[in-house]
Amino acid sequence: MSATSPLIDELVQELGKLPGIGRKTASRLAYHVLDAPEEDVEKLAQALLAAKHGIHLCSVCCNFTENEICDICANPKRDRTTVCVVESPRDLAAMERMHEYKGLYQVLHGVISPMQGLGPENLKLREFLQRLQEHPEIQEVILATNPSVEGEATALYLARLIRPSGIKCTRIAHGLPMGSDIEYADEVTLAKALSGRQAI
Amino acid sequence: MSATSPLIDELVQELGKLPGIGRKTASRLAYHVLDAPEEDVEKLAQALLAAKHGIHLCSVCCNFTENEICDICANPKRDRTTVCVVESPRDLAAMERMHEYKGLYQVLHGVISPMQGLGPENLKLREFLQRLQEHPEIQEVILATNPSVEGEATALYLARLIRPSGIKCTRIAHGLPMGSDIEYADEVTLAKALSGRQAI
Repeated sequence: MSATSPLIDELVQELGKLPGIGRKTASRLAYHVLDAPEEDVEKLAQALLAAKHGIHLCSVCCNFTENEICDICANPKRDRTTVCVVESPRDLAAMERMHEYKGLYQVLHGVISPMQGLGPENLKLREFLQRLQEHPEIQEVILATNPSVEGEATALYLARLIRPSGIKCTRIAHGLPMGSDIEYADEVTLAKALSGRQAI
Repeated sequence: MSATSPLIDELVQELGKLPGIGRKTASRLAYHVLDAPEEDVEKLAQALLAAKHGIHLCSVCCNFTENEICDICANPKRDRTTVCVVESPRDLAAMERMHEYKGLYQVLHGVISPMQGLGPENLKLREFLQRLQEHPEIQEVILATNPSVEGEATALYLARLIRPSGIKCTRIAHGLPMGSDIEYADEVTLAKALSGRQAI
């Protein structure tokens, strides 16, 4: 006979499926839920369902949106000649927080990762290539996949796909992050910073 | 214009209200929810609501239960002469994991904490004192509140309340945790270990 009720066990199990939430944290969250005001818990459950049911992919850039087309693609003030390719909507949100980039986006929803059995067919690539064909105003594609092995491979793959169309293809710069220390920089970053040096 | 949809913002805000979940973690969880299978999210939302609506306090010991009386109080094999007083259902679950204690429990749902404006009236004390009166078979009350300032104060307060009834009142032992090092023990714990020494 367990000290906790099956309903609590079930809740702990479901919470424990979230990323970064282990069994102990899940248990702490479950007991918090039981102590919390009923309306707070209902609001959380509703927010979960509303987001899951109401959010889908923008038909242009594959970003998360609750409309047919996301706010960025629908914004007439954005520069339609430039498309920034990112791995995920979270990366897109990070780019937007910078308030520097005024162009459009394309979200791949993944990277090419043979180790995880993810090939180009698992990305939103078909949508992107079709978009490039249908929108001749696009002059530059900025490849902003992560500076990881998979991100680099995906960027190279995309660059090779796009090059024949004559569209300019650029990759975000790799180098020392601002405020960091050359002394503590890893060799690969330092090598990238050196090879990517620019005239000042 | 935000890069994220209001539904995502709402979900991030609700998740961020959970204890130990900051804005960044809430955002990570929200994007996980959007990527997760729909049925998983529905199961989580249902588990939240089912636990919140289905769980209430045991009419005997104030533990969380989905029945009128919790499994422990309803179990005829438990020793009805001993009641262990704990602060929360989580402490009760910790005691049960030990598989050593065979008596019953009383959950206070809090401690006396003047700093937080919590007095005896905020605890499930009235229920407990009534229970002691109605159940003359209770011979011992084990005070297992936490070894914190508030827990100690609550234990002392309870001991003073219970003593006139003639029921034996004990406090769980304080001392060095098993596997620890005297060298690194704090002074208060070491003093408690010394004053609580027992003949071997």
